[in-house]
Amino acid sequence: MKISSRVEKSGLSPMRKFHPYAVAAEAKGRSIYHLNIGQPDIATPPAYFEAVRNFHQPVLAYAPSAGIPELISAVQKYYDALDIHYDESEILITSGGSEALQIVFNCILEDGDEIIIPEPFYPNYSTMINLCGAVIHGVPTCPEEGYHYANRAKIEACINEHTRAILCTNPGNPTGTVLTAEEMRMLVDVAKEHDLFLIGDEAYREFVYAGEPLQSFGSYADAGENIIVIDTVSKRFSACGARIGCLLTHNKDVLANAMKLCQGRLSVATLDQVAAAALYNVDGDYFSAVREEYKHRRDTVMRKLKEIPGVVCECPKGAFYIMAALPVDDADKFQRWLLEEFEDNGDTVMFAPGEPFYQTPGKGKNEVRIAYVLEQEKLERAMDLLALGIKAYNAR
Amino acid sequence: MKISSRVEKSGLSPMRKFHPYAVAAEAKGRSIYHLNIGQPDIATPPAYFEAVRNFHQPVLAYAPSAGIPELISAVQKYYDALDIHYDESEILITSGGSEALQIVFNCILEDGDEIIIPEPFYPNYSTMINLCGAVIHGVPTCPEEGYHYANRAKIEACINEHTRAILCTNPGNPTGTVLTAEEMRMLVDVAKEHDLFLIGDEAYREFVYAGEPLQSFGSYADAGENIIVIDTVSKRFSACGARIGCLLTHNKDVLANAMKLCQGRLSVATLDQVAAAALYNVDGDYFSAVREEYKHRRDTVMRKLKEIPGVVCECPKGAFYIMAALPVDDADKFQRWLLEEFEDNGDTVMFAPGEPFYQTPGKGKNEVRIAYVLEQEKLERAMDLLALGIKAYNAR
Repeated sequence: MKISSRVEKSGLSPMRKFHPYAVAAEAKGRSIYHLNIGQPDIATPPAYFEAVRNFHQPVLAYAPSAGIPELISAVQKYYDALDIHYDESEILITSGGSEALQIVFNCILEDGDEIIIPEPFYPNYSTMINLCGAVIHGVPTCPEEGYHYANRAKIEACINEHTRAILCTNPGNPTGTVLTAEEMRMLVDVAKEHDLFLIGDEAYREFVYAGEPLQSFGSYADAGENIIVIDTVSKRFSACGARIGCLLTHNKDVLANAMKLCQGRLSVATLDQVAAAALYNVDGDYFSAVREEYKHRRDTVMRKLKEIPGVVCECPKGAFYIMAALPVDDADKFQRWLLEEFEDNGDTVMFAPGEPFYQTPGKGKNEVRIAYVLEQEKLERAMDLLALGIKAYNAR
Repeated sequence: MKISSRVEKSGLSPMRKFHPYAVAAEAKGRSIYHLNIGQPDIATPPAYFEAVRNFHQPVLAYAPSAGIPELISAVQKYYDALDIHYDESEILITSGGSEALQIVFNCILEDGDEIIIPEPFYPNYSTMINLCGAVIHGVPTCPEEGYHYANRAKIEACINEHTRAILCTNPGNPTGTVLTAEEMRMLVDVAKEHDLFLIGDEAYREFVYAGEPLQSFGSYADAGENIIVIDTVSKRFSACGARIGCLLTHNKDVLANAMKLCQGRLSVATLDQVAAAALYNVDGDYFSAVREEYKHRRDTVMRKLKEIPGVVCECPKGAFYIMAALPVDDADKFQRWLLEEFEDNGDTVMFAPGEPFYQTPGKGKNEVRIAYVLEQEKLERAMDLLALGIKAYNAR
């Protein structure tokens, strides 16, 4: 029986594909330091679990397809505090930011369409976009320039008759790149001038380390028809397992069609929505503490990377990832070797190999994404393991 | 900006599209009896909420993409008790049965492909299949024959070079049709002979009222490559809001490609998986009590329907729906009129209009799906409202 060519085009996630090798390594007694996946070790605010424990309805019923009113209202208030207003009807609750992305792509992309995304990008975008029959048009960048992409000429060179949208992950995953207000304005102008959707995947909005104010493409009210914001509680509140995200836009056509897809899957998990609404009452101290902690971790990883000869990377300004070029022939082979053959006192380490973060064939082969989601001491050890691993791998 | 023609092909859910009219009717002080949506009023087993309250990990982390091992193992044991064996790697946990369906369709259908589904069918299938670029080939049935479809000649007449799969909802939604073992064998044989996937959407497996044993296409081990089973805790445990379902198959190609899509959306909500695993320890008495209750309700609805002149329907053998042809010109208009203009002592009633349950244009126009998900007394009142409504509507 035939499998769809669209799904066959996609691969396994570079963050998750080594899971079976990790299981095998653990079975041999190895301890693995996981820097491969954006799973923070920061405690989820207790408000989540309290809300869950206080749920006392006898029937765990379907929620409304657009989301429960309490959560929609909590999201609305959060944006109002950033001076960005969305009506309740302009906010759709989704099963993580992932589902918000799937819904948007399905609403605006089909066979032959192109979407512009700066390289390197979050690899799951490819899986989702392949299913729509559309193609990613990558904006080329390089590690030597800190993966900077926000250049009008560079972006406009990617636009053609098939282009439907520009997608910016800001702050960037995997690069940690943070756009300036001027760069955001330029991107909005380009989208308006060329009649394109501008999708802002802003999962990491709170994770900026230079004291700058929180940003969103949602604040460019003059381009309300163009802009679609993707948001999630996953990173903001260290609640990745809640699978609660949302899609925000003023574009009525997108909303009307997105609602068909929301109704088509009935609803998002009820208890998680109730609990996510409670998260939005967490006070500002939580974020400053978390931000401090991540900044400290970033600095640790950068310091350790600089000590390894041949590594190329710039200090990222946001999110909790560093993309770096390593002095190895093939990061994918290197990762497999780290799990199958390497150990130091029984320990090894995992990253996400870089190639699947690129659309352009051959790019990213010696790059890795490092997620600095472990506490200080573990992070130092993990980076030492990377240094030792590179040395041993190249000395084989 | 252009919206994808694939999403534009789809409509809103007939179960949910009248929600805004219902809100308006409630704002005018109306009480609405909801027979439009398969949301049971049966209490969710307390084990669900106990498990949620006993979750004490500090970080609500991503679950594995395939699901948490405890839940996979619980599902496996449930099938073992039905004498059907799936390996752990052959079970993928999904966000409700809905996501399991989306994943399967995306794995096996693309542009120009056809899937055979008996009419009338669950309308959300259309939304999902449209996104794949594929087409539903409906098997024609009629209310006078109780929507019977399991006839070899009828099914084979639908097969052509574009056919990739046959989908059977068993027990049927919206028809309540239950296949006999002979009919299931025949369908399996047809799938094997024509090299087609056979998808069994078995969300209502427990809801059969003639004392027959529980059935699954999963038990036809000789067609392991062809068969894909869709399952969910939603109806089995009255836990629709948990959004926990699963996909089971022995087909390695489907599993490998489905895993790409599972990884692409990261994971299913963690707490709901933990709690759903606990549901599988509920004992058999729960199901017998629930079954008795629904059987009683079905009999009530049938008795009431028979009292309304001009209604055509057969007594369904399973699920908790009755599809019936009403003596009205247009069930969609009738439903809107029930919400906007009708009331009896401040009460009105909602059904799901039949047309979107059909692929064949013009069919189902005077039919409705009645979900018997309310307790006895409310159900009687709802059916009285239907009778009064039909009379008043036709006397306008």
